[in-house]
Amino acid sequence: MESFLRCIQRTADHVRFIDQTRLPQEEVWVAATDWRVLVEAIKALRVRGAPALGIAAACAAWLAAREATFDPLYPAPLLAALDAIEASRPTAVNLHHAVRRCRALVQPDAQSTVSALAACADELTHYEIEACRRMGANGLAHLGAGEWRILTVCNTGSLATVGMGTALAVVRALAAHGPVKVFACETRPLLQGARLTMWELMRDGLDCALITDGMAASIMRSERINLVLAGADRIAANGDAANKIGTFGLAVQARYFGIPFGIVAPRTTLDPALPSGEHIDIEQRAADEVRGFGACRTAPDGCAVRNPAFDVTPAGLISFIITDEGAHVPPYHFA
Amino acid sequence: MESFLRCIQRTADHVRFIDQTRLPQEEVWVAATDWRVLVEAIKALRVRGAPALGIAAACAAWLAAREATFDPLYPAPLLAALDAIEASRPTAVNLHHAVRRCRALVQPDAQSTVSALAACADELTHYEIEACRRMGANGLAHLGAGEWRILTVCNTGSLATVGMGTALAVVRALAAHGPVKVFACETRPLLQGARLTMWELMRDGLDCALITDGMAASIMRSERINLVLAGADRIAANGDAANKIGTFGLAVQARYFGIPFGIVAPRTTLDPALPSGEHIDIEQRAADEVRGFGACRTAPDGCAVRNPAFDVTPAGLISFIITDEGAHVPPYHFA
Repeated sequence: MESFLRCIQRTADHVRFIDQTRLPQEEVWVAATDWRVLVEAIKALRVRGAPALGIAAACAAWLAAREATFDPLYPAPLLAALDAIEASRPTAVNLHHAVRRCRALVQPDAQSTVSALAACADELTHYEIEACRRMGANGLAHLGAGEWRILTVCNTGSLATVGMGTALAVVRALAAHGPVKVFACETRPLLQGARLTMWELMRDGLDCALITDGMAASIMRSERINLVLAGADRIAANGDAANKIGTFGLAVQARYFGIPFGIVAPRTTLDPALPSGEHIDIEQRAADEVRGFGACRTAPDGCAVRNPAFDVTPAGLISFIITDEGAHVPPYHFA
Repeated sequence: MESFLRCIQRTADHVRFIDQTRLPQEEVWVAATDWRVLVEAIKALRVRGAPALGIAAACAAWLAAREATFDPLYPAPLLAALDAIEASRPTAVNLHHAVRRCRALVQPDAQSTVSALAACADELTHYEIEACRRMGANGLAHLGAGEWRILTVCNTGSLATVGMGTALAVVRALAAHGPVKVFACETRPLLQGARLTMWELMRDGLDCALITDGMAASIMRSERINLVLAGADRIAANGDAANKIGTFGLAVQARYFGIPFGIVAPRTTLDPALPSGEHIDIEQRAADEVRGFGACRTAPDGCAVRNPAFDVTPAGLISFIITDEGAHVPPYHFA
């Protein structure tokens, strides 16, 4: 029995996904038979999170293959669709990997292509679910069951991965074996912690509370936090980890209190070609994300803003890195 | 010439104040001839900031004294008004001090009382403006003119003080003598940094940029911040300082980078009767402040929340404390 949410599901004739932009107010499931609906969903962040994006891309490729079967020039329209799918989120590595894999499966025969792409989407889904399960098990083995009071940031759960999550997989594995309390940082500017993580944790019936990002140090002290867990978007060979903006500050604060700070990410996040975090380009996002939230404008119109999407936590502040392959401790040397 | 905003002004026959709940979208000035308008403004946070609240209370007392002059039982209605003014913000110490001072000036003769309260409001205003000016001068003397890249939190400016501000008075003094760049943390949950500090800094033509609270560590590194300045609501004898939630985390991050972290506050903030910060009660505010963003609901309905209004920065993380009397460095012993 799967106790976690499957945020993207391939059925016999369509793809279902949960529209994350409507959470937490409404749980809206979209049933797509047209790959263009998935592309729009990726662009509009209705589907987000690195592993989920890879699966969404493979599912979109499968829908495109089915649609094009009537075409005498098959697979030309399918290849054009794959290009459009790949362009939907330019910086998402998992999405590129998935599309590249799908492209290699395209055959002159439509029916074989459809079958191959269906199998590919299912395999990717199975792979990600299994990777999440392993991250949870590896985290539990490394940390041990006990009374854990965990601070976390952004969304690293089922909504990002289709499985149990990355950092939240470890939270869930720990919670299955002992009393766990989770404090979720709201994670400005896009509030993935408030909107998505709290929704997931409450859905699971976990003991959780929401805080603003600036409360972290105060809560680490007053709530006797004994573990800080974050995900990662990219990990360099030396262990430096890029993740959602705010992660680095949490690592600094955890070090001040002597609280273990861990990163949980699939091995696909490791980038041994990158010697250190210095070499990671940080995407600057739109100023209006910081000037307000959604339709609420709060800062003066046109005010100057910094909006780095990620920060880089130096390896020296990271107590351990959990992947689906195991637990790593310093000094890190990923090859 | 005053170059700073006077957010509360007593004229010959009324009191003008800027409605801070309308900032930064609109600069709305309210002209009050009825003390009840000021009480409502204090309750609704249209006027806020410790020194500004004291002046608002004294101005309200003056309006109440004028209104009651026709009453044969004078000063009974005035004393009742003073009680109502004092009850408008129960935890604001400056407001209590101001009302206590006003109460001592009440005389059987209406005209003398009105004159005495007008003088009291003007004296308090003059005192606060002068205290701000001195904090700015003392900060400049302690730090020296130079190229300062300053990170700050909450609003510590004219809107809180009627003068140049506390931490922002030091920013302004430094900016008058060298190139200064200010990064304002938005300061969730109530966003005083985004709404008020950015408005003030832009009004002054200062070089400034807004960041979310979680960006602090990343910005300290990428923008080569060389000074972090915050205000304080209460400072214990040993130098522990209570201030807006988020301040403690900034102090921890500043220490990590070796950046000086300073507190700027009037001497009235010093509480030598309090041996250390442990003894400071932290007000927990309404959960909905954290569950949403302005009028937008963002977290799941009814989710658990922590919402401490303040945190306590241990003296060991505070490089210096500037008051209107001078600059203090560790070890602190306020008596």
